[in-house]
Amino acid sequence: MTTPLLGVLGGMGPLAAVDFARKLLELNPVETEQQHIPTLLWNVPQIPDRQLALSRGGPSPLPAMLQGIAVLNAAGATRIAIACNTAHHWFDELAAASPAPLLHIVDATLAQLGEKPEIIGLLATRGALQSRLYQDRFDALQRRYIVNTEDELDKLFMPGCYAVKHGKIEEGGRLLEAAGQRLLARGATRLVLACTEIATGLERINSPLLAASVDTNEALAHTCLQYWREQKK
Amino acid sequence: MTTPLLGVLGGMGPLAAVDFARKLLELNPVETEQQHIPTLLWNVPQIPDRQLALSRGGPSPLPAMLQGIAVLNAAGATRIAIACNTAHHWFDELAAASPAPLLHIVDATLAQLGEKPEIIGLLATRGALQSRLYQDRFDALQRRYIVNTEDELDKLFMPGCYAVKHGKIEEGGRLLEAAGQRLLARGATRLVLACTEIATGLERINSPLLAASVDTNEALAHTCLQYWREQKK
Repeated sequence: MTTPLLGVLGGMGPLAAVDFARKLLELNPVETEQQHIPTLLWNVPQIPDRQLALSRGGPSPLPAMLQGIAVLNAAGATRIAIACNTAHHWFDELAAASPAPLLHIVDATLAQLGEKPEIIGLLATRGALQSRLYQDRFDALQRRYIVNTEDELDKLFMPGCYAVKHGKIEEGGRLLEAAGQRLLARGATRLVLACTEIATGLERINSPLLAASVDTNEALAHTCLQYWREQKK
Repeated sequence: MTTPLLGVLGGMGPLAAVDFARKLLELNPVETEQQHIPTLLWNVPQIPDRQLALSRGGPSPLPAMLQGIAVLNAAGATRIAIACNTAHHWFDELAAASPAPLLHIVDATLAQLGEKPEIIGLLATRGALQSRLYQDRFDALQRRYIVNTEDELDKLFMPGCYAVKHGKIEEGGRLLEAAGQRLLARGATRLVLACTEIATGLERINSPLLAASVDTNEALAHTCLQYWREQKK
């Protein structure tokens, strides 16, 4: 039998990938550390900006990501998770190049959302929104959702996201919280934190919005842990 | 020129390795995420307990660690750091098997301690103390130090260390803080946190002891970042 090994394609950004690795441990109560999921985290941030590639035609991050996928497979990864929402735009190309199956963050998020009818407030980068990563799946499943306006993206969400990426986590958290509050004010009943920086920012400021949110990073971690538990049976 | 890649041998425990990966980012102020150190973190906790191997003749962790070293080298690591103090007992065997040079945590700690005469309060697992990882180097350099008594190890340090490993971080932090306070009460002027779980515990309870401490995990991160900055020149 192949030894299970979770490969994590990180670096986008590197702090979000570390946050993901931490969630893999914190969401898995264990008796001994040997029961934790074996993980190989490729955290190489020298990848062209995904958001700029999608929204302004910047250089493609795909070659760098494919290199990471190759490293993880060569090292024996049996499943691979991508610790970045926006990077899922290239999911099909990455999956085609990877002998190890990739776990999809939108599938993981839908599993956490459950079936209850809600108005989903979708918080995501402009690039991720333009790639319609979540919206196409929500439309296909007839789930109701709203997103931030262009103005809110310019003034709140995008500056908040980059502040977290650059280590100004508290400042970023407050901007991201304000972007989420706009969606709740317009009727959202549940927030989907569809950018791996959002939870990092909201956690730092201990935001009450977290209680009404599905952190997609956390949802993906749950899916990885489910895989690990099945392997141990 | 070879592309720099820091390999991290983690999993001992996995939370300490994630803490180390986070420090590599937090101690490195950057303008863009692409300036962060490229890292491959082997975080595979299925390694026999180092402490038990040293103190009670349990199974050797060396074969599992050698496997990690092989994975990191095959993936192109140009330097390797071991995110666990006790594991440095096997440093020479690991270094002999690794084409990529290994960075030593005691060298990194001495660089952070500086030359000022202090009475070092050395906080470490029983196994690490018995392996004399730090003491032999301190003796050779004529540095004064004190350590916890057997009773303090039994009642405070070791239970605190395992509590952190098993996710009871606040509880563990209080026990480890008490172990450190005993050393300060006996005249220590600076604490060396020579087990990667200690800082995780003390940070969670926001312990005032941190101000008087050198976190060896953090010292190792500084050494890794110095390597990365030299590569970019």
